[in-house]
Amino acid sequence: MIIKKILVDEIIDFLGKDIIKVMGLHEGIYIDNLSDVDRVNETTLDWVNPTKANKQEIVKASKARVMLVDETVEYVDGKILIVVKNPKMALAQVGNHFFVNHPKPSIHPTAIIDPDATIGKDVYVGAYTVIGKATIGDNCFIDSNVKIYDDVQMGKGCYIKSGAILGGAGFGYERDKDGNRFRFPQIGSLIMGDDVEVGANTCIDRGALSDTVIGDHTKINNLCHIAHNNKIGRNVVIAGCVNVSGGNIIDDNVWIAPNSSLRGYVHIGENAFVGMGAVVVKDIPAGETWIGNPAHKLEKK
Amino acid sequence: MIIKKILVDEIIDFLGKDIIKVMGLHEGIYIDNLSDVDRVNETTLDWVNPTKANKQEIVKASKARVMLVDETVEYVDGKILIVVKNPKMALAQVGNHFFVNHPKPSIHPTAIIDPDATIGKDVYVGAYTVIGKATIGDNCFIDSNVKIYDDVQMGKGCYIKSGAILGGAGFGYERDKDGNRFRFPQIGSLIMGDDVEVGANTCIDRGALSDTVIGDHTKINNLCHIAHNNKIGRNVVIAGCVNVSGGNIIDDNVWIAPNSSLRGYVHIGENAFVGMGAVVVKDIPAGETWIGNPAHKLEKK
Amino acid sequence: MIIKKILVDEIIDFLGKDIIKVMGLHEGIYIDNLSDVDRVNETTLDWVNPTKANKQEIVKASKARVMLVDETVEYVDGKILIVVKNPKMALAQVGNHFFVNHPKPSIHPTAIIDPDATIGKDVYVGAYTVIGKATIGDNCFIDSNVKIYDDVQMGKGCYIKSGAILGGAGFGYERDKDGNRFRFPQIGSLIMGDDVEVGANTCIDRGALSDTVIGDHTKINNLCHIAHNNKIGRNVVIAGCVNVSGGNIIDDNVWIAPNSSLRGYVHIGENAFVGMGAVVVKDIPAGETWIGNPAHKLEKK
Repeated sequence: MIIKKILVDEIIDFLGKDIIKVMGLHEGIYIDNLSDVDRVNETTLDWVNPTKANKQEIVKASKARVMLVDETVEYVDGKILIVVKNPKMALAQVGNHFFVNHPKPSIHPTAIIDPDATIGKDVYVGAYTVIGKATIGDNCFIDSNVKIYDDVQMGKGCYIKSGAILGGAGFGYERDKDGNRFRFPQIGSLIMGDDVEVGANTCIDRGALSDTVIGDHTKINNLCHIAHNNKIGRNVVIAGCVNVSGGNIIDDNVWIAPNSSLRGYVHIGENAFVGMGAVVVKDIPAGETWIGNPAHKLEKK
Repeated sequence: MIIKKILVDEIIDFLGKDIIKVMGLHEGIYIDNLSDVDRVNETTLDWVNPTKANKQEIVKASKARVMLVDETVEYVDGKILIVVKNPKMALAQVGNHFFVNHPKPSIHPTAIIDPDATIGKDVYVGAYTVIGKATIGDNCFIDSNVKIYDDVQMGKGCYIKSGAILGGAGFGYERDKDGNRFRFPQIGSLIMGDDVEVGANTCIDRGALSDTVIGDHTKINNLCHIAHNNKIGRNVVIAGCVNVSGGNIIDDNVWIAPNSSLRGYVHIGENAFVGMGAVVVKDIPAGETWIGNPAHKLEKK
Repeated sequence: MIIKKILVDEIIDFLGKDIIKVMGLHEGIYIDNLSDVDRVNETTLDWVNPTKANKQEIVKASKARVMLVDETVEYVDGKILIVVKNPKMALAQVGNHFFVNHPKPSIHPTAIIDPDATIGKDVYVGAYTVIGKATIGDNCFIDSNVKIYDDVQMGKGCYIKSGAILGGAGFGYERDKDGNRFRFPQIGSLIMGDDVEVGANTCIDRGALSDTVIGDHTKINNLCHIAHNNKIGRNVVIAGCVNVSGGNIIDDNVWIAPNSSLRGYVHIGENAFVGMGAVVVKDIPAGETWIGNPAHKLEKK
């Protein structure tokens, strides 16, 4: 975390038209940290979740002078209340802008990039990362020790964490005359949209004869295995340690909870939720929540 | 994928005595791609699965001019049908030979190999791979960012994907007088047969006092953990995200589906199938299929 | 394994006051290996588990000349019996001291360490490891291809295996106005105690607004995902492929078996045991064993 004093005026300038109003005198007042509830102090930028019942009490009880709140909160003496529609989103924006150390775009001298790769503008590539004849969009952040194979197409603004392996050969075999397994050719590509995130040590294989596709804004956590030929939509969330076998269709806005497994060639409908540890062997209709081993529909009570 | 035109004559030469017959005039005719069913075009090398009921209709419906088929398929006007016993295997062979870019055997200058290691002929070692005093057989392909520890013995023709870690110290402790865990020595080896494949970011630990053993032609997918002292047979398939705890015996031709777990010291009999997400806490007799948490026998109906 | 002859006198000197007595003439007698039961030979240092019923028979049947035993074992002609309170612990100590090849403390020339990092005394850092502005305690062993981010604080004597990724940004988002996920700032730290072990390719994320904490002597196996904001106690064991989502409290001496999953914000009480493949969605009281999907208490019979 970057440690520095940020004036309330700087926050107001930064949030701009997202601010509905500011209550309280803030000239010369600063914050210098974001904290979870246990460690809030006078100079924390605190916030109140709009879904809470006792928002007014939370504001009064907070040790923080400056808080992000929604329109339903009334002024409390001595506080500076920055009123926005979505306080958590405003906190996230302030945090990312003022407290996160974003490495400047640059290619580390130890990164090995194929001369036939196409690297967009303002891309960061970390130490010991190896990139083949791939296409990397503008503003991508690719951390250290990443491997990206030939033919991978990555959109703009993607965020690839250390140890991720993108576009490797999938796991497919045909038995030869002696009964031994012979590798089926893995000659498709991996095509990733914009603003995709890939977690640390996660592996996404290229397609066999078709492509593996990951839609815009999809976020994949650490240590996931995404096999060949998956077609994954937009704004999908795949949590840690998930196994997605080959050839599934995962529609937009699906949420796949940690350590679950998708058998190949299932279809997960839009907005469906796959529970933690679920073992999915059937299609899941849109909007449904499935849990268990084997996974079954969770009936809402 | 390599993009090039391949004459039917070249395919006939390559498949050689695997070809039963060729039907249709093929002088000057070429193919230039392999594709899944959605993207087949006139110059795709297409194929028909012998298990399908409507093979004749599939041949007629395909946009492709050239197809690999079995002996039961009759000639269809305008096509070139290459008749073989196993069309999918022939497709795999053609694909691997003509369309896959196989890096030439070479040791990347950034690979760090112990001077006392024994490296066979025609081995590929990728960038930033670190190899200790290990023995690597002929024709092995070891991708980038791999770690191979001292004492590992790897047979011929193995295929090790990026990020794999082979022969690391296992996870075993004895409590000391203060109740804290003290590392039990991990001084066995990891002994791998020929034609073994290890997936990306998969970890296979060395034995503690005995060895970890992986048989010929066994294929392990991405993100698997194979703990110390496992004895794994030939032609075993271990899919993605599988946890194999220490000291199991896994006989030949076992299939272990994704994200399943084997408790230590169980025996999985030949040709057994462990279902996706199965939590195996007992021996599995040969030929049986076990699924669930805890795993139980699936009775065939 | 180091191959060398070790005189019984050397072992006696090394174990020192842990030895209760030595029975049998041992002048000039040596051992040269540790082995599992199948491969014990005359020069193995063998041992007898104090919990066995037939200890006397085990001593007689062993091919080994020299054995570590507890006080209840009587002398057997021709043997050299080294009597200690905990024979397995003595074996572990001898094995680690005489047979394990411990690399000398050193920083590999290819390691990239931020000039503002604080590295303790007698630290080993392997090839291609990248360390940010972190603090690393004395006597830590950090293997090759490891990534340690800024702000990580690591105690003394930690053991970090290859491919581990420590202190990366966690997985947290807030939806923006367009419904797309926007990264919530991940500006906490990762604070690790002394003698912590982190397995190969395991990922431990930094906190979001608070810290991720790992207590002294805690051991984590390969391919685990430890998300942001977890507070993990002392002497906790986390086996392979475990998913620990964000914000849990795991008390001292908890054992988490392989491939289990902890939903965020649960509390696992001291000495609890989480079974293999368990899907934990509730708090677990101290001392209880929970198994299954979803996890439930295992009633002791």
